Amino acid sequence: MNPALIALDWGTTSLRAWLVAADGTVIDRVAAPLGILNVPDGDFAAAFAATVGSWRAASPNLPAVASGMIGSRQGWREAPYVACPASPAAIAGGLTQVETGDGGSMAIVPGLTCVSDGVPDVMRGEETQIAGALVSAPGSRVVVLPGTHSKWAAVADDGQVTTFTSFMTGEVFAVLCRHSILGRLMVGDATDPDAFDRGVAASAGAGTPGALLHRVFAARTLGLFERERPEALRGYLSGLLIGAEVVEGLAWRQAVARDATPLIVGDRSLAALYERALRQLGAGGQIGPADAALEGLRRIARAAGLAC
Amino acid sequence: MNPALIALDWGTTSLRAWLVAADGTVIDRVAAPLGILNVPDGDFAAAFAATVGSWRAASPNLPAVASGMIGSRQGWREAPYVACPASPAAIAGGLTQVETGDGGSMAIVPGLTCVSDGVPDVMRGEETQIAGALVSAPGSRVVVLPGTHSKWAAVADDGQVTTFTSFMTGEVFAVLCRHSILGRLMVGDATDPDAFDRGVAASAGAGTPGALLHRVFAARTLGLFERERPEALRGYLSGLLIGAEVVEGLAWRQAVARDATPLIVGDRSLAALYERALRQLGAGGQIGPADAALEGLRRIARAAGLAC
Repeated sequence: MNPALIALDWGTTSLRAWLVAADGTVIDRVAAPLGILNVPDGDFAAAFAATVGSWRAASPNLPAVASGMIGSRQGWREAPYVACPASPAAIAGGLTQVETGDGGSMAIVPGLTCVSDGVPDVMRGEETQIAGALVSAPGSRVVVLPGTHSKWAAVADDGQVTTFTSFMTGEVFAVLCRHSILGRLMVGDATDPDAFDRGVAASAGAGTPGALLHRVFAARTLGLFERERPEALRGYLSGLLIGAEVVEGLAWRQAVARDATPLIVGDRSLAALYERALRQLGAGGQIGPADAALEGLRRIARAAGLAC
Repeated sequence: MNPALIALDWGTTSLRAWLVAADGTVIDRVAAPLGILNVPDGDFAAAFAATVGSWRAASPNLPAVASGMIGSRQGWREAPYVACPASPAAIAGGLTQVETGDGGSMAIVPGLTCVSDGVPDVMRGEETQIAGALVSAPGSRVVVLPGTHSKWAAVADDGQVTTFTSFMTGEVFAVLCRHSILGRLMVGDATDPDAFDRGVAASAGAGTPGALLHRVFAARTLGLFERERPEALRGYLSGLLIGAEVVEGLAWRQAVARDATPLIVGDRSLAALYERALRQLGAGGQIGPADAALEGLRRIARAAGLAC
């Protein structure tokens, strides 16, 4: 089968790449811990050669397209943000080319920007996952992309991302577990599902709306008073933070008037936790396709005329 | 002048002690970085001797009383929490004695506990500052104690702490500055007052109540888009978090029905930031006495009959 495209999901900590045929068949794939912060001396051309160089050598004219933090100021070349509302075609129109040092080039997908309440917001990589996820689930909806910096995006019937909002849930969870007093009482890395549910319930509980600066302290006091086991505290905090994001996200969904069931796109285990929290909070959620990044890269490459 | 009491404010990172006369005159004082996490080999008797041993040697029967994390499970001896509502007399009744190894002893002030929304909350050290601050400003009010784990306490006319609530504001600010992506764009340690005000305004802005997981991300995007200078981002984030605490705290104040102007007790520069945020958010705040811990230790010692 003839290769038609080299597709790269090139993020902060890791790089995944696929060699795909015109019909979408994956001919070969590679993954490496060569995210932009881990590329020695910032030699991106060497990282490109080490991971997908053999594919390019075998087919010298093969187009390559990459999404993610590789297009950030700290990446290979900055691909300026495209302003919302943004269609897949507008995203394809914003591709930035970089020479790959093997006589060819690589197109970098731009991130998106929007402004809400006067404050700018950004995504980079998620726009490609959204484009890919909606191939099999089109329509007006909210796409939820859990992660270090979770995104909730409003998509119109025609596939345009009209606006979106970010939540630092994953990073706040990580720094609280690793660097705050809350981590001191925790034992183990597992997410106890019952403790997770109790955290979700607490996030939506009575009292002040939000109140997160207060509520996270419970991940200490419940441990101190032996109301949660040390092995359960991590799940409790995870539920509290994901629950807070979901409460905030659902209010945001109401404001942007997208009523369809949220489509959750991303890591399987994390998506399952979001689905669980959405269900508990009365909204429900639909888990999207696992290969959204690859599908999005193919869709954007096609829109740009890079691949058939 | 005859010494009447050795008073110690013995926290997590530092130890302050005063040699006081019966009328409150400070005869001598000492400060050392010998907080409970910094005492070599957990030899608290040696730390006691190194800092206040000469005072005890000169007056072998001199009573000593200490408040703070020294009474925690990780301290010298655990002083069990007293449940709210708790008067200064009830706190004095909960003193726990520890032998100091010089033939004498030291009384440790218990912390307080309360339950709100079914979740336990705790303080240790702040109960003493509250008792001290109210010597010169008695009455039914809310006392705000900013810090790593800020406390807002409701105090009744008779001086009882009826209930309180904690906010992890200081620690969340520290871990976000030091360990999250938000710190990467920050330059300098100063708190730009104008940026602080913009952060406070954003914390109380339109949109979802709370929404902190979203709003903190602005401390990155405003930097990315050069809407805030790198030197201003720290102040912006500080305003955002302190503003969120104040919004939550004022709602809590309404729920506990304490209408008097909040009394702010603690570190001068931090108290000034809270006063600034309270003013901006329409509530106003009164900065309490600087020596609240010492006054509280004297008051509790008197109530326990330890010092005249």
